[in-house]
Amino acid sequence: MSNAKALPLLERQPAPESAVPCCPPLTERPLTAEEAERTAGMFKALGDPVRLRLFSLVASHEGGEACVCDISDVGVSQPTVSHHLKKLREAGLLTSERRGTWVYYRVEPSVVAAMGQMLKIAG
Amino acid sequence: MSNAKALPLLERQPAPESAVPCCPPLTERPLTAEEAERTAGMFKALGDPVRLRLFSLVASHEGGEACVCDISDVGVSQPTVSHHLKKLREAGLLTSERRGTWVYYRVEPSVVAAMGQMLKIAG
Repeated sequence: MSNAKALPLLERQPAPESAVPCCPPLTERPLTAEEAERTAGMFKALGDPVRLRLFSLVASHEGGEACVCDISDVGVSQPTVSHHLKKLREAGLLTSERRGTWVYYRVEPSVVAAMGQMLKIAG
Repeated sequence: MSNAKALPLLERQPAPESAVPCCPPLTERPLTAEEAERTAGMFKALGDPVRLRLFSLVASHEGGEACVCDISDVGVSQPTVSHHLKKLREAGLLTSERRGTWVYYRVEPSVVAAMGQMLKIAG
């Protein structure tokens, strides 16, 4: 394509603002429609076996970060890995940072902690 | 349809065996393909805004259980509510019990706790 842009050497992509963690434990009170809209995407992002594996690969990787170049054994192509990592970033579960050729991904602990918080069962 | 069956008065439907909780925190080690296949469905079940709201309605309802008859304000029809509750049961997040006309749903704490466990972030 002709509209490729020169990318800066270091380009940090934080989680989108829409992914700001929210919401009490699901046992505490019913979610509002707005809260449910805002948080369902986080769960959906982990609702695919390949994405769930990729997320665990990044989350458990040495130094807490990984790039596509670190991931080779999930049985899908590198572009597919990139696509799924992007989806996880868009859902707020990962942040990314470009360093030279590669984009490195890292878990966004606040978002993952918020998901865990929602699944807390009282008693 | 002609193959409707007479339903017993009390019919308990536990979570399917495939939904037996598993897996360490996602930060501990990469999931195997088999583990990811087994658990992605639990996250997918909560990955829809209406289902997430319905789950929180059941989870926070008085007595820890609710039937379709208790749920009227999520903006979808009763058959749609029933459909989503069935999906949540199939994913192992809810169990159901028929009492007369209505099916009552209740959170399956072990499965929800297992999901929370997977989202535990070390440190």
